Amino acid sequence: MPTDTRERLVDAGAELFRLQGFAGTGIKAILAEAHAQFSSLYHHFPGGKDELAEEVIRTTGAAYQELVKAVWDQADDVVLGVESVFEGAAAVLEATDYADACPIATVALEVASTNERLRVATADVFGDWVLGATLKFTEVGIGAGQARRLALSVIALLEGSFILARATKDTEPVRAAGQTAVDAVRLTLEALGRRSRPEPPSRPLHAG
Amino acid sequence: MPTDTRERLVDAGAELFRLQGFAGTGIKAILAEAHAQFSSLYHHFPGGKDELAEEVIRTTGAAYQELVKAVWDQADDVVLGVESVFEGAAAVLEATDYADACPIATVALEVASTNERLRVATADVFGDWVLGATLKFTEVGIGAGQARRLALSVIALLEGSFILARATKDTEPVRAAGQTAVDAVRLTLEALGRRSRPEPPSRPLHAG
Repeated sequence: MPTDTRERLVDAGAELFRLQGFAGTGIKAILAEAHAQFSSLYHHFPGGKDELAEEVIRTTGAAYQELVKAVWDQADDVVLGVESVFEGAAAVLEATDYADACPIATVALEVASTNERLRVATADVFGDWVLGATLKFTEVGIGAGQARRLALSVIALLEGSFILARATKDTEPVRAAGQTAVDAVRLTLEALGRRSRPEPPSRPLHAG
Repeated sequence: MPTDTRERLVDAGAELFRLQGFAGTGIKAILAEAHAQFSSLYHHFPGGKDELAEEVIRTTGAAYQELVKAVWDQADDVVLGVESVFEGAAAVLEATDYADACPIATVALEVASTNERLRVATADVFGDWVLGATLKFTEVGIGAGQARRLALSVIALLEGSFILARATKDTEPVRAAGQTAVDAVRLTLEALGRRSRPEPPSRPLHAG
């Protein structure tokens, strides 16, 4: 096997939870997808399905944050970064027949009122995402409170538009939400008289 | 019994699907909540759980739209209407220990890739909401394309902030998203030189 059993169990859980949710995914389906035995699930995750799900939420949440950060960082400035994140998400939705969006949203809604351990895991992941995006906005001179409000709004626009896009099998909601996110960031910067990227170091026209 | 069996089954399904999702809700739990017999479920819904779920999605989706419309219409103008919708949603989340948000979002994510009949039902509901909100924006003079983009964004902000609020048990995401929604609508109107409510009919200072 190319990967170890623990990793295969987490990957299988991630794939199945994202596609069909937490409650809709039985342990048998996870074992079949991971080519693993019942005993190995409890060897690696003594707490069973809940413990595996917590690991899936935390690892896929962190991986998704890295992915989004990489897309954002490739752009030339913070406004183009936000634009790229929504464009990238729309492209992934189309390429996967609207299956692949946020890795934890379905589980987050399922467990919010029913499973405190998993609710806390999803809250931690969202908290990390909000902090990461807030930092991006403070780096270009937006005050902490306004940066946090923008971060929460951009993530809400992304998550909400994923629900609409998956339900309607159309990227229009993601493109519309992306435009609103871009406008919100751009207008905040304009109101502050800030540039969307740090000033480049000044350089004389003639070096010699 | 105060209501008929069919109505009790739909109410029970709505309550349980919203709290714990579609896959996490078994037929036995619905029957217990509705004080109904197995035979009456299949009498009223020959298609079983799927047919009941479709009815729940369509009726709760329409009822939620009516509720939001009533809150919106009580406000003096379209900007205050959007503000009221987010304020009302935050108050309901707090009052229900973060259980009661969108009635169909959990099911929408669960079924998007797994149950075409129910996916179409959620798409129809979201489509009606988008049309309703688009109409609100065109009524104050915003062009159709921009009105639709605003409608999609406001609904995405609402849905996305519900995920964050339920996961974190905090209304901050809903308040932040509400501020961004209000700003988007206000700035669109300002850019068009439009008022946020229709001109009142002109009236002479002295009627006599």
